[in-house]
Amino acid sequence: MTYENVTLDPTANVYFDGACVSHTFFLADGTRKSAGVIFPSTLEFGTEAPEVMELHGGSCKVQLPGSEEWTTYAAGESFSVPGNSSFGIEVTETLSYVCHYG
Amino acid sequence: MTYENVTLDPTANVYFDGACVSHTFFLADGTRKSAGVIFPSTLEFGTEAPEVMELHGGSCKVQLPGSEEWTTYAAGESFSVPGNSSFGIEVTETLSYVCHYG
Repeated sequence: MTYENVTLDPTANVYFDGACVSHTFFLADGTRKSAGVIFPSTLEFGTEAPEVMELHGGSCKVQLPGSEEWTTYAAGESFSVPGNSSFGIEVTETLSYVCHYG
Repeated sequence: MTYENVTLDPTANVYFDGACVSHTFFLADGTRKSAGVIFPSTLEFGTEAPEVMELHGGSCKVQLPGSEEWTTYAAGESFSVPGNSSFGIEVTETLSYVCHYG
């Protein structure tokens, strides 16, 4: 699966000393997305806009805001996070993802 | 600087257990490139097609094929590697790059 006719920022986003690396790209209509990886680690990400994390590879457990539960997600699945919140993620197998903002 | 009207493969390329992470993308004319990072490490990359490594951030020393010399390159500089060869690279500060193939 590829994204066509996008604008790519070639400078990578590096978070948590390299535990997460992504590239930001924009669809023709200006919609912002990022494609990235998260290596085995336990992290907490803050959100500004709402996010949908679409998993292309690997697996993880996620704790969504307001929940004590850790839910497992794997390639082919997605999870949604409200804006102006945060989520915990425990990556058990290197995660390849696309993050859809807004 | 961004690349417009490209096709992006959202699944990341992960090399050397995460020391290098990149995304492959194609210009409208089909030309293949990749945008990535290399974290501080000493690695050897093989090439198939000739490559031009254009550095957007960080710094490194590079040993090109047929040379005993290690040459320093930093953001804003590029180095070329013949096809079907390899190059040594010692990254001293996380490198952000675009690789131009062919």
